[in-house]
Amino acid sequence: MIGRERLESHRTAIEGWLRSCFDRRVPRGDLYDAMYYSLLAGGKRIRPVLLMEACRMCGGDPAAAYPFAGAIEMIHTYSLIHDDLPCMDDDDLRRGRPTNHKVYGEATAVLAGDALLTAAFEWMLDPTVELPPQRVLEAAGLLARAAGAQGMVGGQVLDMAGEGHALGLSEVEELQRLKTGALIQAAVEMGCVLAGGSQEQRQALCRFAARLGLAFQIQDDILDVVGDQATLGKPVGSDAKREKNTFVTLKGLEECRRLVDKLTAEAVEALSLFGPEGEDLCWLAQSLAGREK
Amino acid sequence: MIGRERLESHRTAIEGWLRSCFDRRVPRGDLYDAMYYSLLAGGKRIRPVLLMEACRMCGGDPAAAYPFAGAIEMIHTYSLIHDDLPCMDDDDLRRGRPTNHKVYGEATAVLAGDALLTAAFEWMLDPTVELPPQRVLEAAGLLARAAGAQGMVGGQVLDMAGEGHALGLSEVEELQRLKTGALIQAAVEMGCVLAGGSQEQRQALCRFAARLGLAFQIQDDILDVVGDQATLGKPVGSDAKREKNTFVTLKGLEECRRLVDKLTAEAVEALSLFGPEGEDLCWLAQSLAGREK
Repeated sequence: MIGRERLESHRTAIEGWLRSCFDRRVPRGDLYDAMYYSLLAGGKRIRPVLLMEACRMCGGDPAAAYPFAGAIEMIHTYSLIHDDLPCMDDDDLRRGRPTNHKVYGEATAVLAGDALLTAAFEWMLDPTVELPPQRVLEAAGLLARAAGAQGMVGGQVLDMAGEGHALGLSEVEELQRLKTGALIQAAVEMGCVLAGGSQEQRQALCRFAARLGLAFQIQDDILDVVGDQATLGKPVGSDAKREKNTFVTLKGLEECRRLVDKLTAEAVEALSLFGPEGEDLCWLAQSLAGREK
Repeated sequence: MIGRERLESHRTAIEGWLRSCFDRRVPRGDLYDAMYYSLLAGGKRIRPVLLMEACRMCGGDPAAAYPFAGAIEMIHTYSLIHDDLPCMDDDDLRRGRPTNHKVYGEATAVLAGDALLTAAFEWMLDPTVELPPQRVLEAAGLLARAAGAQGMVGGQVLDMAGEGHALGLSEVEELQRLKTGALIQAAVEMGCVLAGGSQEQRQALCRFAARLGLAFQIQDDILDVVGDQATLGKPVGSDAKREKNTFVTLKGLEECRRLVDKLTAEAVEALSLFGPEGEDLCWLAQSLAGREK
């Protein structure tokens, strides 16, 4: 398998795993419905796919990493639910469907987010996980740090604080490194740790993830200007409406396109250590750079 | 040391630990301020004290359990911040001070709650924790399950769903077992697990916690009717205003007072296994039954 095919098989595997875990572990009712609605709403599943592929590339069994791949997607999903709330970004549409609070109400949306964040740790720390305890601890700890005040939540705070007044390039880079980059880096590091990979492998994956995360965010900003609402599943122009500081407002469209290409080439280069085993992630980086949603 | 003195020393220790960890691990700014405001706002610290004392009673070092005692208080605190939000209970006052969102705004309050929940796991899973990995995993997993959809968050959902229409006694008991009881039971179980206590000790502590948790909640419902607002630090009569289903509405004040006494006696009885080493927790159960706030 190469490129799309292997990554697609990771994606299908994690979708199935999330669905079956949900049915076994979350009591039925409004909370279940609200959690399920957002978690199983499609999405690119980039973080779990990165985690599982990094695990495979470092000699581990991607199937053993399902609880961790599921956890990172649950944390990503909870952050979207809370970010969309009226008191935050106040978004009505996500992945082409009404946002969680539009369907289930604000209170249930807050609690569904809380429950997804908590479930991420429940599932990683479940007694049925059959990996060495030290690796489980390290991987779950990495995710906690990447998701918290020094990572994703910290980035969201900077993002909100920056709305309506100009930030410099280094501030926007820092914001995005936390808000989007931290989880993307955690994904590959967790995969490596769970596989018992080497320090050298881990460093190469981190270099890859740093470039990929930044390229991903710049492409997001580009799509918010030039994208198609029907393809994206969310309104375009929302950054400008909120006076968000984006790479496009700072550098212009053409420079951003050049940056995405440059960062993607650097990401691919970072994986040279893995030889042919790195090809699938190279394909992923290139396809994300060319994505239209 | 007996009774108040030893438990007070646990309380002082965990306050100091939380303060110093915060300064080292949370970046300064609005998010830090909002997290700190609610976490270090006084409070009885019942859950960390239970955890540390259970750890001591089972032969462990309470100081080694600080990250876990801190974590359970952070999870309790995040739940209060989110429960107080306008879309949930819409409370203006907590522990005698304006609620988090009244001071920092709703968006920051949501994020401060998210960051506290995440930090609980960051701190338990930190590489500096010097306990056997298997115990760390088990204790952190216990807390995750107690806090999530099958525990505290599940209880909050039942609580909201029940507002405005009558629930039976067994439904209110189930709601409270999840909303309040789950964390109280997790506290003593985590303490026992971290100490490497026996199954027999763990079961005794669980029986104790089940009675204590229920007595605590019934006393809460009593105080919402007969308490003094200045002593409580929050308005009285709020349950009735919201048509909440409480033990008092179901059983009446006098029967509730009898129940608190009966449950407290059973809680004390459950600790007989520990002999004199259980006296401090017996004192705690008795003092909580007689509390006025």
